[in-house]
Amino acid sequence: MDNQDMKKKAAGEKAAEFVKDGMVVGLGSGSTMYWAIKKLGDLVKEGISIKGIPSSVRTADWAKEFGVPLTDFSEVQRIDLAIDGADEIDPAFGCIKGGGGSLLREKIVDAAADQFIVVADDSKLVSVLGQFPLPVEVVPFGYEVVKEQIAGLGCEPVLRMKGDQPFITDNQNVILDCSFLEIKDPQKLHDQLKSLIGVVETGLFIHMADIVVAGRSTGVEILKKRKVTKNEAARKND
Amino acid sequence: MDNQDMKKKAAGEKAAEFVKDGMVVGLGSGSTMYWAIKKLGDLVKEGISIKGIPSSVRTADWAKEFGVPLTDFSEVQRIDLAIDGADEIDPAFGCIKGGGGSLLREKIVDAAADQFIVVADDSKLVSVLGQFPLPVEVVPFGYEVVKEQIAGLGCEPVLRMKGDQPFITDNQNVILDCSFLEIKDPQKLHDQLKSLIGVVETGLFIHMADIVVAGRSTGVEILKKRKVTKNEAARKND
Repeated sequence: MDNQDMKKKAAGEKAAEFVKDGMVVGLGSGSTMYWAIKKLGDLVKEGISIKGIPSSVRTADWAKEFGVPLTDFSEVQRIDLAIDGADEIDPAFGCIKGGGGSLLREKIVDAAADQFIVVADDSKLVSVLGQFPLPVEVVPFGYEVVKEQIAGLGCEPVLRMKGDQPFITDNQNVILDCSFLEIKDPQKLHDQLKSLIGVVETGLFIHMADIVVAGRSTGVEILKKRKVTKNEAARKND
Repeated sequence: MDNQDMKKKAAGEKAAEFVKDGMVVGLGSGSTMYWAIKKLGDLVKEGISIKGIPSSVRTADWAKEFGVPLTDFSEVQRIDLAIDGADEIDPAFGCIKGGGGSLLREKIVDAAADQFIVVADDSKLVSVLGQFPLPVEVVPFGYEVVKEQIAGLGCEPVLRMKGDQPFITDNQNVILDCSFLEIKDPQKLHDQLKSLIGVVETGLFIHMADIVVAGRSTGVEILKKRKVTKNEAARKND
């Protein structure tokens, strides 16, 4: 296990400790979540009673493997706590997600949660979002038109492929990976993208995360949201 | 053929006359479009050269039946003229569409068009939108959560069924039919709905139609957009 995997394992296990008996838990996707779900399986064996709502088929498989009971939105409509990974996290806890292709289900699960914990190794912490190409989930029909429109916002969208075919999401859509390099106003960009006809969802998760559990070489750090000062907000909008 | 069918036929045929040689034409859905596409087939036989982009499988079948050549968004990204039906049309040419379940593809096609003609019999002309239940296309995963959120906007959303199973759109989504009865600010409602996580598109087509071709008992009337006066706008926002 290399250094980055160690950080992921430590962060995932720490995040699982936030889960209490009786909770409905949103289970996100990604390599760090593997460790969180494995730990939740241990907690279940120790006797706590929880129900998980998975945001991808892979996550559901992990939950079954480790003995975490599952439910779905036909049974519950609120989630007590969601834990999920991220591809980038900024100082205001804005995230880019969707590198794995499950951004829509992840967003539905995370948004339905009273509390949302993002878990990641410290390589994901950035000062400004955008180096990681922003995944945008788009309806296949007419995606060429949407691609042109997104290009007009300042990037060159790339249709995500799987072999020589377009990658298809769990919801039968395609993904455009959009390299903006520096996203100065994530909320504005999200609103612009989401208002386009044919855009189903974006990988910008803004004003959603409450806590970041970051795996560092020196151990796991728990970051809680702090208020952004007026000066910082002004600089951000420069 | 009853009186309403006569109006639809007359309106559909009249709308087809707007199509000129060389055009790429968006072909909407619905019973009035049947007549427009049949007429376009006649024009093609008479020698004009056009290409149609269909917004539903049914429309594509009609185009093939009547000999209208088809293309798609991999070949063209702009449409010269789109013709489409509507379930309700207000005095500002705002429309509710999607009774037939193809609202997303229709919107993609209509929005890509330089000019958009709505064609309908006069029973579709209303003073305020909302008597016709607004179709909202939603991702199946977690639609129960979206349903609750939409209910909070002032209606009782109903999951559209086909027999004893949820109706599934061409894009593998479900539809919530939302009876608002009176939609005072269609743009605001659209924005509120579209911003919800899991909502793919709404059946509100605002600021899109340029011309309405309305079939009346007294003949076909061609309505062109007029400016709304400040007093009217103020009254509307009361």
